[in-house]
Amino acid sequence: MAEKAAKQGEIPVGAVVVKDGKIIGKGFNQRERKQLATKHAEIVAIEKACKRLKSWRLDGCQIYVTLEPCPMCAGAIANARIDTLLFAAEEKTSSDGLLQSILSSLRLNHKVEVKRCEGKEDAQLLLQNFFKEKRKKSSK
Amino acid sequence: MAEKAAKQGEIPVGAVVVKDGKIIGKGFNQRERKQLATKHAEIVAIEKACKRLKSWRLDGCQIYVTLEPCPMCAGAIANARIDTLLFAAEEKTSSDGLLQSILSSLRLNHKVEVKRCEGKEDAQLLLQNFFKEKRKKSSK
Repeated sequence: MAEKAAKQGEIPVGAVVVKDGKIIGKGFNQRERKQLATKHAEIVAIEKACKRLKSWRLDGCQIYVTLEPCPMCAGAIANARIDTLLFAAEEKTSSDGLLQSILSSLRLNHKVEVKRCEGKEDAQLLLQNFFKEKRKKSSK
Repeated sequence: MAEKAAKQGEIPVGAVVVKDGKIIGKGFNQRERKQLATKHAEIVAIEKACKRLKSWRLDGCQIYVTLEPCPMCAGAIANARIDTLLFAAEEKTSSDGLLQSILSSLRLNHKVEVKRCEGKEDAQLLLQNFFKEKRKKSSK
């Protein structure tokens, strides 16, 4: 999914929602193509999973993301009552503890478990190459 | 917009995005009706404003919300580069400082200004009546 984003000139981030070992929603970043600030990979994947299950509640689901989610997406993961977030690459500013605060927000009687998943190097490489290409183009 | 939500059995929250004194996007909470965890008032209003301006960037815009935004919506407001958030009623757990942390997240080279707006009592009353009715129905 992240590779699909890169091919369309989007920051390469991909996400899938899984239930009982099956993918029930997948998405990639489409912010530029759709010109919507909300169209991050996680939001697309969550909305697809909700439509598939015909429910805003994604209890018993896991979400896999190639990059540590931004505050909006972390909030969406908590709002959807997803059980577990698994991400590959870290965000540069991940040390600020904001992700944990959002995922265990007092507003919701729900806490999302956070784990790391495989693919960190691939996800990072994809992002690095994307920004390298972008800098090349903008300096031309 | 919040009243529209209440009439449809949704938690009554409404939002409008304003640019140069004109409403360019409005929304109300549609989580239950659409069965989508992401369909909060702010997200609906932001997506409409992006479509109107044909841009994911909402520079120079203000968003008015009847209730202090959740982490997902605060993140979306920051992602959309909205200038100012104005909200009426406070969330019960607003003392945790999470909103400010999200709106000035280090990830974005952008800081959303936060102000209070008129309508606090009306917004609170609408919410209180909604939950009172809900409790009545569930105890019948």
